[in-house]
Amino acid sequence: MQTVGTLGNEVIISRFQSIRSQTETICKPLLTEDYVVQPIADVSPPKWHLGHTSWFFETMILKRFYKGYKIFDPAFNYIFNSYYESIGDRLLRTDRGNLSRPSVHQVFEYREYVNRHINELLTGKLDLETLTFLEIGLQHEQQHQELLITDIKYILGHNPLFPVYAAKKKQDTGFISADIHFLEIPEGVYEVGFNNGGFYFDNEKPVHKKYIQKFKVMDRLITNRKYLQFMNEGGYRNFSFWLSDGWEAIQSQGWKAPFYWMEKDGVWHEYTLSGLKKVNPDEPVTHISFYEAEAFANWSGKRLLTEFEWEVAVNFLKPEIRKGNFIESGNFHPVPSSGNNRQFFGDVWEWTYSAYHPYPGYRRAEGPLGEYNGKFMIGQLVLRGGSCATPVSHFRTTYRNFFQPDKRWQFTGIRLAENY
Amino acid sequence: MQTVGTLGNEVIISRFQSIRSQTETICKPLLTEDYVVQPIADVSPPKWHLGHTSWFFETMILKRFYKGYKIFDPAFNYIFNSYYESIGDRLLRTDRGNLSRPSVHQVFEYREYVNRHINELLTGKLDLETLTFLEIGLQHEQQHQELLITDIKYILGHNPLFPVYAAKKKQDTGFISADIHFLEIPEGVYEVGFNNGGFYFDNEKPVHKKYIQKFKVMDRLITNRKYLQFMNEGGYRNFSFWLSDGWEAIQSQGWKAPFYWMEKDGVWHEYTLSGLKKVNPDEPVTHISFYEAEAFANWSGKRLLTEFEWEVAVNFLKPEIRKGNFIESGNFHPVPSSGNNRQFFGDVWEWTYSAYHPYPGYRRAEGPLGEYNGKFMIGQLVLRGGSCATPVSHFRTTYRNFFQPDKRWQFTGIRLAENY
Amino acid sequence: MQTVGTLGNEVIISRFQSIRSQTETICKPLLTEDYVVQPIADVSPPKWHLGHTSWFFETMILKRFYKGYKIFDPAFNYIFNSYYESIGDRLLRTDRGNLSRPSVHQVFEYREYVNRHINELLTGKLDLETLTFLEIGLQHEQQHQELLITDIKYILGHNPLFPVYAAKKKQDTGFISADIHFLEIPEGVYEVGFNNGGFYFDNEKPVHKKYIQKFKVMDRLITNRKYLQFMNEGGYRNFSFWLSDGWEAIQSQGWKAPFYWMEKDGVWHEYTLSGLKKVNPDEPVTHISFYEAEAFANWSGKRLLTEFEWEVAVNFLKPEIRKGNFIESGNFHPVPSSGNNRQFFGDVWEWTYSAYHPYPGYRRAEGPLGEYNGKFMIGQLVLRGGSCATPVSHFRTTYRNFFQPDKRWQFTGIRLAENY
Amino acid sequence: MQTVGTLGNEVIISRFQSIRSQTETICKPLLTEDYVVQPIADVSPPKWHLGHTSWFFETMILKRFYKGYKIFDPAFNYIFNSYYESIGDRLLRTDRGNLSRPSVHQVFEYREYVNRHINELLTGKLDLETLTFLEIGLQHEQQHQELLITDIKYILGHNPLFPVYAAKKKQDTGFISADIHFLEIPEGVYEVGFNNGGFYFDNEKPVHKKYIQKFKVMDRLITNRKYLQFMNEGGYRNFSFWLSDGWEAIQSQGWKAPFYWMEKDGVWHEYTLSGLKKVNPDEPVTHISFYEAEAFANWSGKRLLTEFEWEVAVNFLKPEIRKGNFIESGNFHPVPSSGNNRQFFGDVWEWTYSAYHPYPGYRRAEGPLGEYNGKFMIGQLVLRGGSCATPVSHFRTTYRNFFQPDKRWQFTGIRLAENY
Repeated sequence: MQTVGTLGNEVIISRFQSIRSQTETICKPLLTEDYVVQPIADVSPPKWHLGHTSWFFETMILKRFYKGYKIFDPAFNYIFNSYYESIGDRLLRTDRGNLSRPSVHQVFEYREYVNRHINELLTGKLDLETLTFLEIGLQHEQQHQELLITDIKYILGHNPLFPVYAAKKKQDTGFISADIHFLEIPEGVYEVGFNNGGFYFDNEKPVHKKYIQKFKVMDRLITNRKYLQFMNEGGYRNFSFWLSDGWEAIQSQGWKAPFYWMEKDGVWHEYTLSGLKKVNPDEPVTHISFYEAEAFANWSGKRLLTEFEWEVAVNFLKPEIRKGNFIESGNFHPVPSSGNNRQFFGDVWEWTYSAYHPYPGYRRAEGPLGEYNGKFMIGQLVLRGGSCATPVSHFRTTYRNFFQPDKRWQFTGIRLAENY
Repeated sequence: MQTVGTLGNEVIISRFQSIRSQTETICKPLLTEDYVVQPIADVSPPKWHLGHTSWFFETMILKRFYKGYKIFDPAFNYIFNSYYESIGDRLLRTDRGNLSRPSVHQVFEYREYVNRHINELLTGKLDLETLTFLEIGLQHEQQHQELLITDIKYILGHNPLFPVYAAKKKQDTGFISADIHFLEIPEGVYEVGFNNGGFYFDNEKPVHKKYIQKFKVMDRLITNRKYLQFMNEGGYRNFSFWLSDGWEAIQSQGWKAPFYWMEKDGVWHEYTLSGLKKVNPDEPVTHISFYEAEAFANWSGKRLLTEFEWEVAVNFLKPEIRKGNFIESGNFHPVPSSGNNRQFFGDVWEWTYSAYHPYPGYRRAEGPLGEYNGKFMIGQLVLRGGSCATPVSHFRTTYRNFFQPDKRWQFTGIRLAENY
Repeated sequence: MQTVGTLGNEVIISRFQSIRSQTETICKPLLTEDYVVQPIADVSPPKWHLGHTSWFFETMILKRFYKGYKIFDPAFNYIFNSYYESIGDRLLRTDRGNLSRPSVHQVFEYREYVNRHINELLTGKLDLETLTFLEIGLQHEQQHQELLITDIKYILGHNPLFPVYAAKKKQDTGFISADIHFLEIPEGVYEVGFNNGGFYFDNEKPVHKKYIQKFKVMDRLITNRKYLQFMNEGGYRNFSFWLSDGWEAIQSQGWKAPFYWMEKDGVWHEYTLSGLKKVNPDEPVTHISFYEAEAFANWSGKRLLTEFEWEVAVNFLKPEIRKGNFIESGNFHPVPSSGNNRQFFGDVWEWTYSAYHPYPGYRRAEGPLGEYNGKFMIGQLVLRGGSCATPVSHFRTTYRNFFQPDKRWQFTGIRLAENY
Repeated sequence: MQTVGTLGNEVIISRFQSIRSQTETICKPLLTEDYVVQPIADVSPPKWHLGHTSWFFETMILKRFYKGYKIFDPAFNYIFNSYYESIGDRLLRTDRGNLSRPSVHQVFEYREYVNRHINELLTGKLDLETLTFLEIGLQHEQQHQELLITDIKYILGHNPLFPVYAAKKKQDTGFISADIHFLEIPEGVYEVGFNNGGFYFDNEKPVHKKYIQKFKVMDRLITNRKYLQFMNEGGYRNFSFWLSDGWEAIQSQGWKAPFYWMEKDGVWHEYTLSGLKKVNPDEPVTHISFYEAEAFANWSGKRLLTEFEWEVAVNFLKPEIRKGNFIESGNFHPVPSSGNNRQFFGDVWEWTYSAYHPYPGYRRAEGPLGEYNGKFMIGQLVLRGGSCATPVSHFRTTYRNFFQPDKRWQFTGIRLAENY
């Protein structure tokens, strides 16, 4: 489903080792107990992520391309298959947190076993198909790195002891929340979709043309300060700002603030991976649903972007992706905007008002890869831009992330546009 | 939210009387008991439709524009408000079928009372605002005429006695299911959205430009014959055709055929408003969910249209809407295609693969009319073309109907496209 | 399962006609619409009661004992079978209110058809088995008369228009709520269970011995006055009075008063079959769950009776059952105690703290009658004494009514005991 | 609520240490991961049991009787309070398995801390109240020892890897499944309830008289052989054996065999704490619900005992409780009956057809102890006899265990009686 460059084996070996070990680095601060629990269906136990990503390499590569490969444990296919109907029966998603075995130790043995065999495979001559699947395996591993961060946050952040995952970095002193400016984007027929070299997911293709009406877009994310104003002015109590489904969600769920926020003695706090702290008004608001983002936009008299507007706007900038606040920065949280950072990359995934649907001419691949993206193209919205939990090397400006409109446990945020 | 023409009062009076009495004509075949029940939340009791449409005229027009108007019964606001948060508390939707009172007789008295006062209002000079609301009330009434037909079908079709609503018309003898041809639509930037005179809903606006890739579209709807082939070739058993949510829906609901179909002694029958009958292979398939439509398209190696492709394609034809099989034909069921009817209008609403989202520049109106369309713009898909239960005078080529992807009780169907 | 006296045919004919027509009398005040709805699973539509009781005679008697009997409509077995696994598939209980057909008119035709054939059967010589089933059919009909009253009350009492079923009788003026006295019951081995002539249900047998510790029992039911005191003193807010399941029920259901009570401008009102009225402090409290009765007892420092204590206590009195406030009195509501009425009979069913379990030596009958009582002997509590909705000729001192501890729509109430 | 003997401090210290360390011995075979999960609401994570029993000592004894006691961690009250409304807010029961912290290590530190302080307290002079609460704490600890065994079994037995908890002991060779005999119990007025010295729970009091009809009782438990016959003869398919609620349970749950049974290649296996093994026909059947026990009894043409019949029957024997198969035997599973073991004690808890209701004259204690037993006296059935997971020193012939009729994860079994 995606092409792969012509890298030498050494580059691939080094990339494989670095990405696989990065996953384990993410888990370093965890106690054994933290690897096991699944407080809600969306959140998988960290040991499941570790096993599942190994299972992906075993199933998609070793079983197919490593001659004479001996499966580590036949029972693991049942346990670590996520959603591939084409690869047999699997554990109910909601049962992942009910399994105390395999132990964390066994799961790490499984990783080592798979790594060793992949490394052996990588010493030989590799055909294009193997390389392609390897690359997909690595991209898949990086997706689970982001999920590990957000799932660990859920697990620790819903514990009454509020454990710290990583001490806060000092770096955000000196940041200045700059004034908001609007970038003007002229109307026209633009090309969207992936058309560079390198890796892409099938959902970014085919490249195609879009007619875009002229619009203006904020060069900053919405901050907690602004969001608190929305809250204080009755944002959660006035139905006229809300989509009907959103209004129903906040009633039935009792939402009155972003996820992870709690009021203590009249002061809003939020759980971060550095522990419970006062809400910083200069940071971008995060952990909000699409419903909240859209209601906030209505309250503001502005609107969310479409995914195509986002992509076109970014192409007008010089994308300096590497300057974004991605996982490598070690913040594990969005940071206030500095003077010249427009925050399009990293920090928070930006909800767009675009359904996650196929691009014109898209067709699902045959076999398990056809289940990777295509079968989820209903009922979800596209998010753009990457977050503080995304590996920067995993990100592209054409990247389409997608979630249901009520999800709040990812690092999600808001950018607004208006017509002119 | 919508303009209204400059019709003389007489025209309006006549239009008001004819549309209001049409609603009652639809209910003529019912027994008192049929007016009361609500077998699922989606299906409202006919007496509720009768009351709610009257409440709409009372609330939106009489209370505001008829000086000295005396409300028929203050309790009715609670009972007959559908979903207007701005107009106070209301009965839970699921409780509509739990109310034996007001009686059918009282509801008809309520209609008469409202009609009498509207007629009185219509004898005077009417300003544009009143006329606009009157027109909305009539359009609203027509929407409920379609819902009355589909809800009555649900009520009678889920009764083990399978009562007949209207005897079948003889007209479909002589019809010939013609060969399918593909119409070729060239690429280009097209204008979509409402830009004629007359009534429109706010969701059809603003007119805006869309870039459309070239494509080919079938000049026929998918028939029962073709759908039976899909079923017989394992369509409902092969997950690779299905969206993930669709596959889950057919497992959990046990769907194996269109709604209203049942197998008797090895022969597929379907409940129609003329009673239970053998499935006619030449009729367009109907009462299928978006999930089924999309899976069928995958099985066919083709795809659904977007709502914009549909609108553009139709503009290439000479829209002869009035020839479509609408409610006025009295079939209450889709009919086989004859030689020169491309079935774009009437028969069945065609599922598109377009999310029901706002057009660029759309803004919700203030007040209750802002709740009419805008707040539903999430989680639903657009359907185009009208059905055998739609009043023809209610339909336009820019009309956007919308439902969640799992709904099956409307007259929904399939048209396919492919790239070229 | 129960013996039957040796009555002449005429007596039986007259009894049959009178009981069957009594059911129709109960339905007289209803509009057609009232016959149809089922607001909760426990409450059946009145037309279903009318059909089901006819179905019982058709199935248990006509099909078996009337030679050449032609079934009225074969589809009715599916519709009107309540819970008899031995008599084939049946409609889901929760779907009874979804059926607009058969119409009320058809159901009455069905009744007439069944009545005519039973009357024909009664002109011939009847064997004991037929007579036994006839008697069961009549007792069954009387049980549904009580359910009709309570179900009609639910249907009308949950309608925002609060329709009146029957105008209030003037009779309760002049009643005096007498002082409470305690009757002392000595310890001993007593016989309990049915051992007179006449009809009984199998659950009242076998007669057997019980050792009863000495106790004292109130000669009055608990009044609204006393229950209001419980409410005002925080009865619903102090968990220490409550069984764990009860506490959970009042939390999750939001119960703060008896069923049918509502506060209007600071004054407690209750819906009665004569309409909404102020709570009369002298009337026995009714429409309370077992949980509430038991919590009230704890608050009082007293306790509920067991079913055996109730039966033994009553045997010490001269049971003057006919003086009780049963359905024949036309009150359709409990009335204040007069000087010499100890209220053991009629007014309200008294919750006992006895599980509805089989008496020693009880065995279920074979066939459908074995499903009548025996299969419900788990998870329910026994109620004794009859209510204002019970036909007096249906009642006996050994009668065991039974409901789950959270049910509130029957006329249920409280009598207390204490040890001495 | 219960008296306590006049034991010297040394005896108490030794008893405290031995029972507390026994709990830890039970957990020895666990991996850290096994301590954390909660696959269903009924099953608590082992680390929760360890924390909760320590919390009980801390809350009921140290906080009240140890002057200057410093609470280990104030957050633990929220986490380890099970159901005591009187001791403040608490974690939702269903969230116990969502907490990775406190870690297992911390929970053991908590135990040590509490143990150390209790030991300090035990060196001083103790008044009767302190001693009473200490004894309750130890009895409570023993109850959780049984729950630990059954919850560990659930956790391991629902893991697709079926881990072994303890290797099977060889002891059951040589056992002979003896013929069943019936013991005849004469009618009469008997005393039931606790009236020896030593510890008792308040629900075993007051001693009171019961009239018992004569009956015969099996001197053996029902074996797997007999239960397989029930299964093979359609026991789970014939509604006539079942209570209505039981029939509904087996339909909705899909039960076709005891819990932990699974068919592999046509042979019935069951998970035991020694791993998955073939069903041994000579062992007592276990892990069945009351519904199944009662249906089995009906199929047999016999019946279950009441709790009073059980107690009276046992008093006719020379209770040799210590010979029973309790937890100390190390089997963790019921064993076949040998020639002279009537299996009244240990092996499996025997379902009785007696509701768990208060004995005559019972009153709940004030304060938290009042929540220990009394508030659960509804909706549950009494089980008698102890099981292979019960500490023998915790058991008495008057002991009343209680569970809802659908529970299957405890070691529950069947003994039958009949009238004569």
